[in-house]
Amino acid sequence: MNAAKAGDLVMLVAEDRKQFILTLQPGEEFQTHHGVLEHDRMIGKSFGARLDTHLGSPFHMLEPTLRDLLLSTKRRSQIIFPKDIGYILLRLSVGPGTRVLEAGTGSGALTLALAWAVGQTGRVVSVDRRADMQRLARENLERVGLANRVDLLHGDIADPPAFEPADALFLDLPSAEKALEPALACLRPGGRFGAILPTANQVSDLLAAMSEIPFTDVDVCEIMLRFYKTIPARLRPADRMVAHTGYLVFGRPVERSGPPVGE
Amino acid sequence: MNAAKAGDLVMLVAEDRKQFILTLQPGEEFQTHHGVLEHDRMIGKSFGARLDTHLGSPFHMLEPTLRDLLLSTKRRSQIIFPKDIGYILLRLSVGPGTRVLEAGTGSGALTLALAWAVGQTGRVVSVDRRADMQRLARENLERVGLANRVDLLHGDIADPPAFEPADALFLDLPSAEKALEPALACLRPGGRFGAILPTANQVSDLLAAMSEIPFTDVDVCEIMLRFYKTIPARLRPADRMVAHTGYLVFGRPVERSGPPVGE
Amino acid sequence: MNAAKAGDLVMLVAEDRKQFILTLQPGEEFQTHHGVLEHDRMIGKSFGARLDTHLGSPFHMLEPTLRDLLLSTKRRSQIIFPKDIGYILLRLSVGPGTRVLEAGTGSGALTLALAWAVGQTGRVVSVDRRADMQRLARENLERVGLANRVDLLHGDIADPPAFEPADALFLDLPSAEKALEPALACLRPGGRFGAILPTANQVSDLLAAMSEIPFTDVDVCEIMLRFYKTIPARLRPADRMVAHTGYLVFGRPVERSGPPVGE
Amino acid sequence: MNAAKAGDLVMLVAEDRKQFILTLQPGEEFQTHHGVLEHDRMIGKSFGARLDTHLGSPFHMLEPTLRDLLLSTKRRSQIIFPKDIGYILLRLSVGPGTRVLEAGTGSGALTLALAWAVGQTGRVVSVDRRADMQRLARENLERVGLANRVDLLHGDIADPPAFEPADALFLDLPSAEKALEPALACLRPGGRFGAILPTANQVSDLLAAMSEIPFTDVDVCEIMLRFYKTIPARLRPADRMVAHTGYLVFGRPVERSGPPVGE
Repeated sequence: MNAAKAGDLVMLVAEDRKQFILTLQPGEEFQTHHGVLEHDRMIGKSFGARLDTHLGSPFHMLEPTLRDLLLSTKRRSQIIFPKDIGYILLRLSVGPGTRVLEAGTGSGALTLALAWAVGQTGRVVSVDRRADMQRLARENLERVGLANRVDLLHGDIADPPAFEPADALFLDLPSAEKALEPALACLRPGGRFGAILPTANQVSDLLAAMSEIPFTDVDVCEIMLRFYKTIPARLRPADRMVAHTGYLVFGRPVERSGPPVGE
Repeated sequence: MNAAKAGDLVMLVAEDRKQFILTLQPGEEFQTHHGVLEHDRMIGKSFGARLDTHLGSPFHMLEPTLRDLLLSTKRRSQIIFPKDIGYILLRLSVGPGTRVLEAGTGSGALTLALAWAVGQTGRVVSVDRRADMQRLARENLERVGLANRVDLLHGDIADPPAFEPADALFLDLPSAEKALEPALACLRPGGRFGAILPTANQVSDLLAAMSEIPFTDVDVCEIMLRFYKTIPARLRPADRMVAHTGYLVFGRPVERSGPPVGE
Repeated sequence: MNAAKAGDLVMLVAEDRKQFILTLQPGEEFQTHHGVLEHDRMIGKSFGARLDTHLGSPFHMLEPTLRDLLLSTKRRSQIIFPKDIGYILLRLSVGPGTRVLEAGTGSGALTLALAWAVGQTGRVVSVDRRADMQRLARENLERVGLANRVDLLHGDIADPPAFEPADALFLDLPSAEKALEPALACLRPGGRFGAILPTANQVSDLLAAMSEIPFTDVDVCEIMLRFYKTIPARLRPADRMVAHTGYLVFGRPVERSGPPVGE
Repeated sequence: MNAAKAGDLVMLVAEDRKQFILTLQPGEEFQTHHGVLEHDRMIGKSFGARLDTHLGSPFHMLEPTLRDLLLSTKRRSQIIFPKDIGYILLRLSVGPGTRVLEAGTGSGALTLALAWAVGQTGRVVSVDRRADMQRLARENLERVGLANRVDLLHGDIADPPAFEPADALFLDLPSAEKALEPALACLRPGGRFGAILPTANQVSDLLAAMSEIPFTDVDVCEIMLRFYKTIPARLRPADRMVAHTGYLVFGRPVERSGPPVGE
């Protein structure tokens, strides 16, 4: 029951930690410059098993984690990073059964995480103006078997199609401040709102727009993730790290009360 | 359908952003120094609604997010913070249907997040040597209606009760390096392993123990979360921030292959 | 020759690390709730010596470092922090013999560091519109014996008094972008320019103004300083830290060449 | 008086911000793939001036700052970074007239900064076991005209040559905890002590050794420097940054008093 079977998505990890994600198919071969590994040799093996290529290079076979899947999405745009996605899921309270609306599908990394988290009983709607990005996102979702939880809508959130209001709304758009008002029409009152923005100027613009709406519980934050070298006797941070992915903005749209936010 | 009803867990947010989480019960009163708000006035109102106390102080009624619930857990020990929990969920791939084992229940904040993420179809087992902490964790879980997804086991992970191997294992223990080997017996091969440790010395100790086991995909990291002041025309980080909660360690136990990790 | 003498500025450090900076004067007493210590008992003692109050509380007598002096400046405004000052000195190349112009004296912490670094052969000119702040800065400078290296000018940098162009110019002003052009008239061509600004909006404004001037070598940065708890067997960062003091902006005004900076 | 003259160290900055530091010599040529610039054309020009190569590529001529000099040191080992050096100078109170002892000359970047800061009236002694590193450091010092302020001693700090006790001591050594006691014999009582260490394990070891000595005012910290992109309308941090250079340790050796530090 812990054995890999045909159709499973598996991850092979080389000794140098390089990762390869593939779908097991009888008769197929996994080929690297480290040598060849037949899928048939993997099918039926336990996860965690070591398998050597015909050249003797060892690989470990694992089930990819959500993070592994996110980092392996094919992309034609900057994806939202796992460090940010983990926190977004908590702030937007995206879990089994949640209905989420995303504007700005992009390559679909966040879309994938949302689809993964909402389970069979939830639903993700993702809107993008670019048909090519939506095709790419669909491909990324299909690869991991999550496309059936997502409605990819080709269009502009400023002119949103009619659908049942979402529990949570996330914007990954260059001019989020302009999309805010129409997008909020798709969020149920008191729902969870979030956005990611690369520049400080965009954050100012979105905060200004939010102060018109009434929001409560408004937060702006950024998350820094620093890795360490893993030698026990010489523990130290890695030499370099990602300095910035985006600013995260969160809030809850509410009935107007007193002076607007931030004043 | 977006209206609060008796039995719902709701969050009231004051103008100064102070939050209060409570369960709506007919006939009850919410009392603060801002005045009194009868639960009966909230029942039937839409989420996002504004309600004023008898003294005229406005509150907004919201559904608490997972983060709100985590931050409001009653605690007698340091809890794991949302910034870390979000990333842990991604690294351990905890979602609908996952079976997770946690050692070190503590006040139960991570337990709550795990129970929330695994949905109806998953399962959380959490072990702790302290009966008082488990009572507290149970209380925190019951408050949010998630106790039925969790087995709280009183005991030591070094002497684990027999149960079906978990998909993911997380250790929040002072001497994780000692618990590692017995705890891994409860994780299925290739499963997801994680730990949180406050000191660098503990990280070195755990990494040394992990290098004996065979692990692949070993990572040590820390997450820094910085909030900003939300005035659009004066965007700037807050004055102070949390500098440290814990180091996170992750890895995948695998069949032995070549030299141990980290050498 | 390593002994404290009358007139010396000394620092007493208690066991709980609380610090007290004072000038030794025959006949005077140092009084805390830990007890009394006569200056005459300190005069003639070696630095590093332990001295007990009449209640038996131990203190160590040290010469204050530049950082100790900065942290002990009397203030009626936010001071620039040592972490930032250290880097400013390097970027502005402020050392023995340098002539520096500062606009925005404030409480005079940076003024003190500049005066300290330029030595007997350098010169600091510091301009502020507020006479009360300049009195406070003078007091802070006099306490540490550095007032004779500084010209405190009461006035507006937008209307600068005539003086020999400085080697380096630093602005600590709310609207640095407005003061930029007149202030640069006081800096010799190719000199070193720097500024500290609390908000991102101010940085954008200053960068926009700088792009009109011709600058080269323009940098914006921020410095984060994280302390650790110093128990050898439990090494870990402190719980909390300063999240933000200000953004630092640097550049070198030059003869125009091609398109302006940042485009 | 603001004009470059033969023998001056000047920095040429290209439009892409690439920097070149050179000593002006009549008859010489500066050659890049951007074209040729004769030194004679620079001599006599004002700093800040724009000069075009024979291919029409513009350069600005500046005096290098201390930071520019540090970043341009020739190296065969990791150098201490400006962000750390600025803070070290403040914590060790290294300024005009200070006598500093450094153990671990390495490529001499910190040595250069110390020599620069102490002025004509101070003195730097720097010890290293490797003759080749000292030759490199001497070369770096000579290039900037500071070699005459430094005694480069070939040897081991554990067996220090006799000389007048220093005001400040800095260790940049792999096993600083072993060198601590002999090195402290070269520091005057109450002097300023600092060290830089790449790993957490080394910090623990040094702290343990320091707790035997009596130290007061012990601090461990790390400094993170994050740069921003400088486009006014799109202000945001750079994509990547240095994650770690070293942990900084500071303290003041004192007469014993009560229980040792850190317990």
